[in-house]
Amino acid sequence: MATRRRKPPAARRPPGEIFLQYQSRGIGARLGFGVSPVVLVIDFILGFTDPSSPLGADFGRELHASARLLAAARRATVPVLFTTTTYRSDLSDGGFFVRKIPSLAILQAESRWTDADPRLTPLPEEVVLVKKYASAFFGTSLSSMLTVLGADSLILAGCTTSGCVRATAVDAIQHGYRTIVPEECVGDRALEPHEASLLDLEAKYADVVPLKKVLAYLRGRAETNR
Amino acid sequence: MATRRRKPPAARRPPGEIFLQYQSRGIGARLGFGVSPVVLVIDFILGFTDPSSPLGADFGRELHASARLLAAARRATVPVLFTTTTYRSDLSDGGFFVRKIPSLAILQAESRWTDADPRLTPLPEEVVLVKKYASAFFGTSLSSMLTVLGADSLILAGCTTSGCVRATAVDAIQHGYRTIVPEECVGDRALEPHEASLLDLEAKYADVVPLKKVLAYLRGRAETNR
Amino acid sequence: MATRRRKPPAARRPPGEIFLQYQSRGIGARLGFGVSPVVLVIDFILGFTDPSSPLGADFGRELHASARLLAAARRATVPVLFTTTTYRSDLSDGGFFVRKIPSLAILQAESRWTDADPRLTPLPEEVVLVKKYASAFFGTSLSSMLTVLGADSLILAGCTTSGCVRATAVDAIQHGYRTIVPEECVGDRALEPHEASLLDLEAKYADVVPLKKVLAYLRGRAETNR
Amino acid sequence: MATRRRKPPAARRPPGEIFLQYQSRGIGARLGFGVSPVVLVIDFILGFTDPSSPLGADFGRELHASARLLAAARRATVPVLFTTTTYRSDLSDGGFFVRKIPSLAILQAESRWTDADPRLTPLPEEVVLVKKYASAFFGTSLSSMLTVLGADSLILAGCTTSGCVRATAVDAIQHGYRTIVPEECVGDRALEPHEASLLDLEAKYADVVPLKKVLAYLRGRAETNR
Repeated sequence: MATRRRKPPAARRPPGEIFLQYQSRGIGARLGFGVSPVVLVIDFILGFTDPSSPLGADFGRELHASARLLAAARRATVPVLFTTTTYRSDLSDGGFFVRKIPSLAILQAESRWTDADPRLTPLPEEVVLVKKYASAFFGTSLSSMLTVLGADSLILAGCTTSGCVRATAVDAIQHGYRTIVPEECVGDRALEPHEASLLDLEAKYADVVPLKKVLAYLRGRAETNR
Repeated sequence: MATRRRKPPAARRPPGEIFLQYQSRGIGARLGFGVSPVVLVIDFILGFTDPSSPLGADFGRELHASARLLAAARRATVPVLFTTTTYRSDLSDGGFFVRKIPSLAILQAESRWTDADPRLTPLPEEVVLVKKYASAFFGTSLSSMLTVLGADSLILAGCTTSGCVRATAVDAIQHGYRTIVPEECVGDRALEPHEASLLDLEAKYADVVPLKKVLAYLRGRAETNR
Repeated sequence: MATRRRKPPAARRPPGEIFLQYQSRGIGARLGFGVSPVVLVIDFILGFTDPSSPLGADFGRELHASARLLAAARRATVPVLFTTTTYRSDLSDGGFFVRKIPSLAILQAESRWTDADPRLTPLPEEVVLVKKYASAFFGTSLSSMLTVLGADSLILAGCTTSGCVRATAVDAIQHGYRTIVPEECVGDRALEPHEASLLDLEAKYADVVPLKKVLAYLRGRAETNR
Repeated sequence: MATRRRKPPAARRPPGEIFLQYQSRGIGARLGFGVSPVVLVIDFILGFTDPSSPLGADFGRELHASARLLAAARRATVPVLFTTTTYRSDLSDGGFFVRKIPSLAILQAESRWTDADPRLTPLPEEVVLVKKYASAFFGTSLSSMLTVLGADSLILAGCTTSGCVRATAVDAIQHGYRTIVPEECVGDRALEPHEASLLDLEAKYADVVPLKKVLAYLRGRAETNR
């Protein structure tokens, strides 16, 4: 990266402080839950969740939290969708994204790196969308599928917070969906980008909420459905 | 924003250190310049550039740097496009974005807040795209216009780095464009989100380069054209 | 157009006969009405509805039928959206479409040709989307707006059947909407393309139904709402 | 289909006559060839090309003509892309399209119906895009791929003229591409919809030209490349 032209301040402000300043200026209101949610699990595939992968990190806690999210969603008959990212061996379907991140080349369609992490396996009836870029909306029929499902909101889990999760959240609000990010269910390779993206998401694109709040919401729906 | 579940480390790592770690794992390669660039100036409108606006900040330095960028682009006959963001008075065209950022309501089509900052006025032949969301590609015909122009790369200026600039950069590489961000030409309301987004952009979506490098590239084109 | 390589048959088959053959092969089933419709009026602007325009035709009957559709929709508090098509004076926002149809050049943003036909004026609260191409979805935020409205179906009126109406209907089913075309509310410059497109729409993309059936459906909704 | 409300005229006008009338009104100009074409073969898969399929027809002549097109394109090192259409066994990825055309259910990902017709087999380096709807642009990364290839024009072959070919041609000009349809390389289940769509394409979206003209153009490119 180019040399920073401005010196970092002696003490960097924590996200909470910046967020308070945003709120005083009419940035970062709450969207609230919708009435017809869909859970979308983004790229929890071995290429990202296996620490031995060049693109991987230890997402044990995030996978565990997401498993709780999925269990609650399935009990409430809330649809669950997944994404994976795959490329041809000649990478001709990856454009400049695979040139910017050369390690993406490991995500060959037939390799294990593109399989769902076994701690979070899709059920047979749950669709796995194949994408090539960061946003789960881009170059897929996710948007159509959500419309057909009658969804009005999206609950996001997956990795990485500053990559595919954030890109998908930005597209989700652009496409007209209330967007919810249960904080424990998304993770990144480093803490700083994770926290910076949560701040931006909460300020501009999504409600970043504790998992327990989402679980309570889903429990409420499960009871109503009975 | 929800309370952070993890304590921030005693000392936060600077972006440069994180980036070096990315590079060792095949993340953050250079894309390089294209041969047919377009300059896109994102939302340098009074609602964002006038510090008296609830959404505004002082972007004097960024506007000055961007004016140099535009002068060089025009000399090299590189097309320049602009965006503005406008809403109806009932906000029915703003979806959940105007609910998440209630201050966006000031961006009424007929208000001065949606006019280009006078320090960076579009020429009559330069198109101003009207958008409703963060990405300049979303809900506009930017992508078609770039194809008709035969563009292969996009040079981005504007604000904010963590908002519309970043969302546009993510969409730019998704749509197949080499994406260049001259660092001095983009700005944000706070330093921390600005730097965090430059790190992510450089790692995954764009080349973040010093303005002087872009000016040299444009100068080279201007001479070739003669 | 290039010379046809095959001789037209002595007697051309009427659409009804072809459609029966389609149905026997599992093509052209009925979608049925949705529960949350939106009415979209496509390009009933003076450039198309004034017979003195190079692009115009006499759509008196279609406008009259569409006025009945709108009255019923408004009574049932079904949202109504409109489109218009406009270009810059240098046509730089029209791509190859304005080169293929040079007469589109009359659709200057400030000209009366781009105004809604006075027989079908939008109410102040009804959004008019500005498009550059055939489909009302392309380069607009129609899709987001429909999601925010919670729409599950689209009822189309406008012109021309073989142009913007059909392109929008194809995009509507692609985006996940049940699509309804009340036959009397859409028209074309010539009868043959009109009928050929109704056949294709009914076979592959939409339910083409008599207006009275749509009016009865809307009446039913108006009564339910009381 | 609903009963036609207007009687068909005693003698229907041939497409050529309607087209002449269009031209006198500034509709149906020529786009001409581009300098960087891509050939796109749309859905020449067994489900459509095998007459024993419920969706099939005899496209022997169109496949033969398309094979000549591909040979010329490959000699000129013009990129060739293909599409196929596939669905999950539960059809949850087909939305209302598979409800409108129930026979599409045969296009199971693992079935032979979704394989390329052996008379027109993709080479290993030629990408096959998987789509769910009519347009090859919808829900795929075709647009990105064309940008990365630097394409400025699209030459279309495939089936059916009134279905996926036309929908793709409309999207192609919307996305900013000169669009060429070599008439002998596209076909339909019935003659009338085929001819009606060629008329509309030539009037509004594409140049419909004899194959020999496209072959001459590609030959010219092959010689230049030497």
